[in-house]
Amino acid sequence: MKKTILIAAAMLFGLSASAQQALWGGQGVVSPEINADGTVTFRYVAPKAVKVQVTGDFLPTQKVTMKMGDREMTQEMPGVADLKENKGVWEYTTPSPVAPEMYTYTFTVDGKSGLIDQNNMWVNRDVSTLASVLLIGGGHAEDYLIKDVPHGTVSKVWYDSPSAGFDRRLTVYTPAGYEKNIKTKYPVLYVLHGIGGDEDAWVTQGRATQILDNLIAEGKAKPMIVVFTNGNISEEAAPLENSTGYVNPTMGLPKTMEGSFETSFPEVVKFIDSNYRTIAKRDSRAICGLSMGGFHSLYISLNNPDMFKYVGLFSAAIGTGSEKNPSPIYQDMDAKLAKQFAKSPYYFIAIGDSDFLYAANTEYRKKLDAAGYKYEYMETDGGHIWRNWRKYLDYFAQKLF
Amino acid sequence: MKKTILIAAAMLFGLSASAQQALWGGQGVVSPEINADGTVTFRYVAPKAVKVQVTGDFLPTQKVTMKMGDREMTQEMPGVADLKENKGVWEYTTPSPVAPEMYTYTFTVDGKSGLIDQNNMWVNRDVSTLASVLLIGGGHAEDYLIKDVPHGTVSKVWYDSPSAGFDRRLTVYTPAGYEKNIKTKYPVLYVLHGIGGDEDAWVTQGRATQILDNLIAEGKAKPMIVVFTNGNISEEAAPLENSTGYVNPTMGLPKTMEGSFETSFPEVVKFIDSNYRTIAKRDSRAICGLSMGGFHSLYISLNNPDMFKYVGLFSAAIGTGSEKNPSPIYQDMDAKLAKQFAKSPYYFIAIGDSDFLYAANTEYRKKLDAAGYKYEYMETDGGHIWRNWRKYLDYFAQKLF
Repeated sequence: MKKTILIAAAMLFGLSASAQQALWGGQGVVSPEINADGTVTFRYVAPKAVKVQVTGDFLPTQKVTMKMGDREMTQEMPGVADLKENKGVWEYTTPSPVAPEMYTYTFTVDGKSGLIDQNNMWVNRDVSTLASVLLIGGGHAEDYLIKDVPHGTVSKVWYDSPSAGFDRRLTVYTPAGYEKNIKTKYPVLYVLHGIGGDEDAWVTQGRATQILDNLIAEGKAKPMIVVFTNGNISEEAAPLENSTGYVNPTMGLPKTMEGSFETSFPEVVKFIDSNYRTIAKRDSRAICGLSMGGFHSLYISLNNPDMFKYVGLFSAAIGTGSEKNPSPIYQDMDAKLAKQFAKSPYYFIAIGDSDFLYAANTEYRKKLDAAGYKYEYMETDGGHIWRNWRKYLDYFAQKLF
Repeated sequence: MKKTILIAAAMLFGLSASAQQALWGGQGVVSPEINADGTVTFRYVAPKAVKVQVTGDFLPTQKVTMKMGDREMTQEMPGVADLKENKGVWEYTTPSPVAPEMYTYTFTVDGKSGLIDQNNMWVNRDVSTLASVLLIGGGHAEDYLIKDVPHGTVSKVWYDSPSAGFDRRLTVYTPAGYEKNIKTKYPVLYVLHGIGGDEDAWVTQGRATQILDNLIAEGKAKPMIVVFTNGNISEEAAPLENSTGYVNPTMGLPKTMEGSFETSFPEVVKFIDSNYRTIAKRDSRAICGLSMGGFHSLYISLNNPDMFKYVGLFSAAIGTGSEKNPSPIYQDMDAKLAKQFAKSPYYFIAIGDSDFLYAANTEYRKKLDAAGYKYEYMETDGGHIWRNWRKYLDYFAQKLF
């Protein structure tokens, strides 16, 4: 009888069959559970399993060294921990408090890896892989918690891209008050993703809109419009959000690092200046990006010195050979740098000390140093990871306008 | 050596550890695969499993009859099919072509249910349950495919809610051209979700923005602003999008069907009229909703006959007992109906013939018939499911303004 009532209640208001199943199937466990002492317990229901493990970047990492061409690279890999079974529920509690951060993790059951946590509906997509999310507040994570502050508007906007030949999608953040203050004009920050991302990446994984909400509310950053582009110019929009069909994303789409996107970029700026209340001047424009987006930011700003005063390179993917592409975008770097730095940009370079692009970034900095070009440099621990990119954005945004 | 290069390529541009894992772990299967003959193949890699099944609403459904109080209700439940193993890859191909539709499905491995398809990163959340999505184009599904047409802007917007005491989030669709046509004013459609949903539900599961893009592009619906509210007034925003912390959603949040949301609704309309270029008149306002949202639409329009000319009740959750709540919103229905229908609203009622709310909706229609109030009625096959609600919205939107 009790079950009947439960089913009826579940069915009453528009649940899909699978939701009903979960409701009355009732796994009845909480995972992840952040305990009072700061440790975290992960649980996975699998009565028939022989071995269950959890892997994620909250666990101590292992450093793995690999060769890329002639170069040795070191990358941090997430650790693995075994869960213990008790009446069909597998469980693992961290031995010590987990530091504040946004982490991702998955389970491995009897050798089957990449399973998300069924008791946690917070899932992040990275390229075509899904992982469960754990967020521990405090420390740097406070920068990107959703707080009781005025929130900006986050929009999915399509612009006509003559160079691509079709409409393309942007994510646009307008700060709290934008709709009301109809006479106010705002500076614009353009934020670019890495080769695995799209116009959603900085919002979902980068927490950029929360970072901006909080900085602006605290008076640490100026109210600004933030534009998140899609740097894969062969693509209309993020996977599942375009008219080209139902496909899983892949790495290294055509036309990502051969000059097309950089060449087309002024059409994005033109669209934004035409459709938003922007201050359409160099002093009120900034561009930054991570990895491939850092590479894009370097060359877009290099080729448009009158467009951007502020430039941020986060773990920029320089020195990968893409610069050898014949696109005019990549030619005459020295002369272009001289022109760009003659205008005293605010130029920011940030990288983790174990990033596999560390050496390439060091070489680039030496080049700037040799020419006497000023820039600000931030070095953090860790590698080529979102934890660092969130920090860099948080810092960079405070320096703008 | 080959593996080293692959790892290096994967690491090159900002992938998380788990993405790298998937890339070089390489399951190497496609799932779901839509075959040339219209059948669909599902695949799941599980070398150690003994039994693998797939369950989803693309399979023939079973009708299950249950009691709710004195009333018998019938609900369709998704079917189940067994996969067959071949070298560790489990596979199931539908015996016949799958009809055009948006479906959800999950796998069950050795009794462990609710597993998403690891080769399909399209996942829908329904309350706190995740399921993989299969979309087959054609037929009614053409209504909500993303096509090469002008796309509206979809925004996440926060409004100040004096009655709730905090800021709350809306999803707002502005039609293609809204930004450019700065002298044009638009009518507004308010679209409300069911008890398991929030301001995201109609966009993710209801495909409402695609439906509107397509109707407007074809000239079948007028360009309009569409506002998706969050009907759980105790909640700031969708789970994971609010400042109250990191919790999985539950069914039947406080203050969902006791008058609070309906009472507060004019403050949403006021916000929209103040912040968007609306035609702020009854003739240019519509409201509709599914299940709980149909119930809300009924009472909001009933209590504000001068606010809405167009009303759509989709599988409305009437007759559930909520009307007995002492809120003034639910009192004096007959007198209020007389006032509302004296103004000749366009009143639309739609429901599936196996919906568990069918009887209650029939009773309500009898009441309207007895009083001679005119409405349009649509009856479809199937139950209390998104397939129907997408159809109803597609139809209703064409009738507006």
